[in-house]
Amino acid sequence: MEISKENISSWLMDLQDSICSALEMADGKSEFIEENWTRDEGGGGRTRVIKDGAVLEKGGVNYSAVFGEAPEFLFREKEHSGEKGIATSSKPGFYASGVSIVLHPFNPFVPIIHMNVRYFEMDNGTRWLGGGIDLSPHYIFEEDARFFHETLKAVCDKHQPEYYSKFKLWADDYFYIPHRKETRGIGGIFFDRLNESAEMSFEKNMAFWKEVGLAFAPLYTELINRNKHKSFTESNKHWQLLRRGRYAEFNLVYDKGTKFGLETNGRIESILMSLPKTAGWEYNFVPEKDSLEETTQSLLRKGISWA
Amino acid sequence: MEISKENISSWLMDLQDSICSALEMADGKSEFIEENWTRDEGGGGRTRVIKDGAVLEKGGVNYSAVFGEAPEFLFREKEHSGEKGIATSSKPGFYASGVSIVLHPFNPFVPIIHMNVRYFEMDNGTRWLGGGIDLSPHYIFEEDARFFHETLKAVCDKHQPEYYSKFKLWADDYFYIPHRKETRGIGGIFFDRLNESAEMSFEKNMAFWKEVGLAFAPLYTELINRNKHKSFTESNKHWQLLRRGRYAEFNLVYDKGTKFGLETNGRIESILMSLPKTAGWEYNFVPEKDSLEETTQSLLRKGISWA
Repeated sequence: MEISKENISSWLMDLQDSICSALEMADGKSEFIEENWTRDEGGGGRTRVIKDGAVLEKGGVNYSAVFGEAPEFLFREKEHSGEKGIATSSKPGFYASGVSIVLHPFNPFVPIIHMNVRYFEMDNGTRWLGGGIDLSPHYIFEEDARFFHETLKAVCDKHQPEYYSKFKLWADDYFYIPHRKETRGIGGIFFDRLNESAEMSFEKNMAFWKEVGLAFAPLYTELINRNKHKSFTESNKHWQLLRRGRYAEFNLVYDKGTKFGLETNGRIESILMSLPKTAGWEYNFVPEKDSLEETTQSLLRKGISWA
Repeated sequence: MEISKENISSWLMDLQDSICSALEMADGKSEFIEENWTRDEGGGGRTRVIKDGAVLEKGGVNYSAVFGEAPEFLFREKEHSGEKGIATSSKPGFYASGVSIVLHPFNPFVPIIHMNVRYFEMDNGTRWLGGGIDLSPHYIFEEDARFFHETLKAVCDKHQPEYYSKFKLWADDYFYIPHRKETRGIGGIFFDRLNESAEMSFEKNMAFWKEVGLAFAPLYTELINRNKHKSFTESNKHWQLLRRGRYAEFNLVYDKGTKFGLETNGRIESILMSLPKTAGWEYNFVPEKDSLEETTQSLLRKGISWA
């Protein structure tokens, strides 16, 4: 199939469909509600949200495709990176489409997950792919963390042996909360501005990129099934609130996708679907010694080799 | 009394003491817990937090006085404003002290309140005062809103008849959440970089500034006493969660004090004491027609004359 923005967007909508079906099956109770929206400046999206499921308390699987004049900060970023070839006096058109997922489960032993695959092009010929999957367990279980990273490594290795270590490092750096000196979760893979290199054509990168999208549903349903029957206490729910608080901090203070959305007059309800149904903060909370919470806290750092 | 940073800081610590006493009296159950901290680069603070009170679920009354080399962004800001006289090659020393308060009550009919009074000087002679009080009711009652603004207007009018309208406008603009197209609450007064003008000497401005600080305790205890006995439902608590979510959004995305703290390696737990014990988000929540929630939502906008 020819690579065109139409084909890519069509593939993304199919991906959204298949992921929603898989998640509804895994949840067993709730279904996604769909809302279509349009953006004044061009394009729109198909937001799908789920709430109060047996497993999924709140979340969304959102597709969007927006276009128009490229926003100014894209040029600023270009200038900073030293890239050339774009006249800042005339604004080229851009087209950006993608699928973004954030899921907050009710059971604190089921992890929060985030996935994004995105395509970007400008009518001057620039185009790139970005995306990634990362996991934010309220409680980190080493066997789940290894399974998660090994699955992502296998997806990467199939296409380019250097990608896993490179994109794992990128995720460690990206999903970091500097003011807390901790990572948001156990990371995963993150990549941006993939186009073509000596070894990887754009087509090859796209094949990798698609496989990241397709890996999401089996990966997360496995993690759901491993943990959804575990019983939990009030204290576990309290810790979940605090972890969700950190998640909200990261997304509101640092996440580039959120900032991009807020700065480009994106659809607020679709952007902020990433926030949990409830979150909490407690002054100077310190986990009990030798608790599961303390173990989790100690593993919220960069550079752990899970795979 | 001579105006010196030592005298100002001493006055601020007394203010913190008297406000904490008044709040403990009004709460009737919980007491503030104090933590002293030091900042590696110079200075430190006296954090006082309260939790699980009869009225106050979570909050803090924090004093800090920090000093050292003025952080770079202060110069950048200066350059943008066109002010002159500071060589960017050498960094002058700065001293900043203040009292910051955020209180989140348990009862959704008691409003969230925020107050800040701050003093800043650089060793090149630059100095200014800033501060303000603003109210974020979960439910807006017009009589309380009028009382709140009329009290602030009286404080302003006593010193400078132009201040209330000017600083009320400033608060409307400052405590605004652009991505929600709504204000954080009903505003109040906000001012920054007060030093001296033809009509107001620095001493006169300081007298005004002190009165803002002293107005806080009687103002908030009155609002507590008016509302603390009101009974509430699960639905009121749910709305409170959503309003707290907006409060967290404002503080994490826009608040300059929070940004300043995060960027200058401030003490995170003291900065983020402003966040509520719990907060919540719901996709596309729309209040019921003719409900108290709908009335409140309709009043979350700039430019309402309350006094």
